[in-house]
Amino acid sequence: MADTLISPSRRLRTTPYSNRVAENGATGYTVYNHMWLPTVFGGLRQDYSHLKEYVQIWDVSVERQVEIKGPDAHKLACLISARDLSKAQVGRCYYAPICDQHGKMINDPVALRIADDQYWFSIADSDMLLWVQGLAYGMGIDVEVSEPDVSPLAIQGPMAEDLMVDVFGEAIRDIKFFRFAAFPFKGRMLNIARSGWSKQGGFEIYLDDSSLGEDLWDAIWDKGEKYYLRPGCPNLIERIEGGLLSYGNDMTREDTPLEAGLEKFINLDGDADFIGKAALIAQRDAGVTKRLMGIEMDGMEMTSVSVPEPLTVDGKKVGILTSAVFSPDYEGNIGFAMVSVEHAYDGAKVTVESLQGSREGTICEVGTMGKRVQEMIAFRKLPPE
Amino acid sequence: MADTLISPSRRLRTTPYSNRVAENGATGYTVYNHMWLPTVFGGLRQDYSHLKEYVQIWDVSVERQVEIKGPDAHKLACLISARDLSKAQVGRCYYAPICDQHGKMINDPVALRIADDQYWFSIADSDMLLWVQGLAYGMGIDVEVSEPDVSPLAIQGPMAEDLMVDVFGEAIRDIKFFRFAAFPFKGRMLNIARSGWSKQGGFEIYLDDSSLGEDLWDAIWDKGEKYYLRPGCPNLIERIEGGLLSYGNDMTREDTPLEAGLEKFINLDGDADFIGKAALIAQRDAGVTKRLMGIEMDGMEMTSVSVPEPLTVDGKKVGILTSAVFSPDYEGNIGFAMVSVEHAYDGAKVTVESLQGSREGTICEVGTMGKRVQEMIAFRKLPPE
Repeated sequence: MADTLISPSRRLRTTPYSNRVAENGATGYTVYNHMWLPTVFGGLRQDYSHLKEYVQIWDVSVERQVEIKGPDAHKLACLISARDLSKAQVGRCYYAPICDQHGKMINDPVALRIADDQYWFSIADSDMLLWVQGLAYGMGIDVEVSEPDVSPLAIQGPMAEDLMVDVFGEAIRDIKFFRFAAFPFKGRMLNIARSGWSKQGGFEIYLDDSSLGEDLWDAIWDKGEKYYLRPGCPNLIERIEGGLLSYGNDMTREDTPLEAGLEKFINLDGDADFIGKAALIAQRDAGVTKRLMGIEMDGMEMTSVSVPEPLTVDGKKVGILTSAVFSPDYEGNIGFAMVSVEHAYDGAKVTVESLQGSREGTICEVGTMGKRVQEMIAFRKLPPE
Repeated sequence: MADTLISPSRRLRTTPYSNRVAENGATGYTVYNHMWLPTVFGGLRQDYSHLKEYVQIWDVSVERQVEIKGPDAHKLACLISARDLSKAQVGRCYYAPICDQHGKMINDPVALRIADDQYWFSIADSDMLLWVQGLAYGMGIDVEVSEPDVSPLAIQGPMAEDLMVDVFGEAIRDIKFFRFAAFPFKGRMLNIARSGWSKQGGFEIYLDDSSLGEDLWDAIWDKGEKYYLRPGCPNLIERIEGGLLSYGNDMTREDTPLEAGLEKFINLDGDADFIGKAALIAQRDAGVTKRLMGIEMDGMEMTSVSVPEPLTVDGKKVGILTSAVFSPDYEGNIGFAMVSVEHAYDGAKVTVESLQGSREGTICEVGTMGKRVQEMIAFRKLPPE
């Protein structure tokens, strides 16, 4: 289905920054957690090049928070998270796949421990709120589970730190990767994390008062000119180059963290129990039958693939291409693929039955691909001798 | 936010009928339950007039099913539903608000009792699946909760019955309102209910095999010419005329069934317990502070209102207009409004602070408005003497 018009509705929530996003010329949107997420400003490639060189301001309010608060908040956070949070520290962020009892992924949020008795799970696109509320009620756990008025604003790109310092002060530089600290803004204390859905570096500001949305946007915008600040949004090319997976696209409710290649984020050998652990141990013991991998593809420049296309070997379907794009800096077609385990190894050859025509692909590890892409980009950017 | 382009994504699922919908010229869409729902074909008014005179085929695959199956299916269905399902019969449909323990609405599905040990809840736009799965796991209830491969196709309009008879046989006429029966199609038995999100009469076909989507569409399409069959979709004008509420638009997670005026669908005085009952009894005893009402508005023809606008009395905000539209057949502006209880009575005067300018409104009961609208339309359609 091509780009198409979407009708306005209260069901599709606007954000505290929506006016600014529209004024700044967003030309495409998607819907994510029942909310608008801009997807294009100048164009996919133009946004990409700018993101990698300067700094962008992103309305990522769609990263809704599932807040767990109360005496049993830590207990419940540990129970729902396949990532071991038993030693989670206040002020830190943790990428934490959430599974059902069958090990299938319900969401893959970033967990922030806000206080000893308070977590925020910054979610991907599913109503994880309802899963946690149902569990807490069903198990009689003493917590409050809610969606607070929190709308993250991301500042991403190599110049993000300097810009943020101009707005919030030098202490911004002290925030380490995947940690957060509180900074004053208009009488409130806003949690600011060094994080974000790009590999260009940057911050996410967890604004917890919608009425300050435009003030916050403007305060940053007003300092942005010398850094060539532009509005932006998560970029398909950049995130594939960086090996960043998208829940709902690269892996879904049908997949487990083992199938999605997220072993390093889960702990099956520790003492701590969590929902889905037994199923995941059983799957590890039996061996997975499919696995999410990187893929490089021959042929002409691909236009972006956001709806899966079949992968075949000798005419037999062996998986799907979940996301793909031409990377201008890498000068090649790259993407992610969920493939049967027999073909889930570095160097495996597959055929992509793309709407853009058939082409040959070579499978690799997601991490390997990301690393190779980054190295080759760095090499190509060396000045001529 | 005006009509805008939406980018394709795997997260936004296509349906078994998407190709047919696109081929037949859908010009607008929305996203509902992570899936495409067409919103416009010829235009809002053209679609409306046609729906009320002939028959339309609607892709309402977004009405996803939450299936509860197993020994405790009936027990769990009764526990989650504010509608009393204790005597629910196989073959019947029940409009069943689903609440959390605070009485706030999580969804407002139609429940179908498929078998003694099996329910489908045909849901509005929230991942109610996760609520039920969380509850079932948390409470240790012996059921399977899943989203089956079921994609409803609606046939709506005054000529729906004759068309359906041509496709499925005379037995279609025996299906009473809000009941369903199974009919053969291509070797499967499909549940067909006399139901649908219009007041023009019609059916919903619960196709439970995606691979047959285009066959089913075509089988109906091929018989449609003599009934002036066209593709269509839920229509804002028609549904407001008919008093049909939209979860997420007219009432949300912030509202209870008592506030949404849904008293007649819930049973607070019976013996059966359900999640949210105690909170709703407490609210009934204390009295609600706001209530969903109908509203009629003066002035020029309104273009459709799908994002709430404030209602005031003497300059003070007293509520919101949740949906509104000009009804050509009624020759007036009508809508729904969530207003503070002091103004929630038939005849109350309010001011609508619309983007289209300020105008006067008169509050009425949703049911009263629907009835008056229908009567006036019938009167206006009488042939001249």
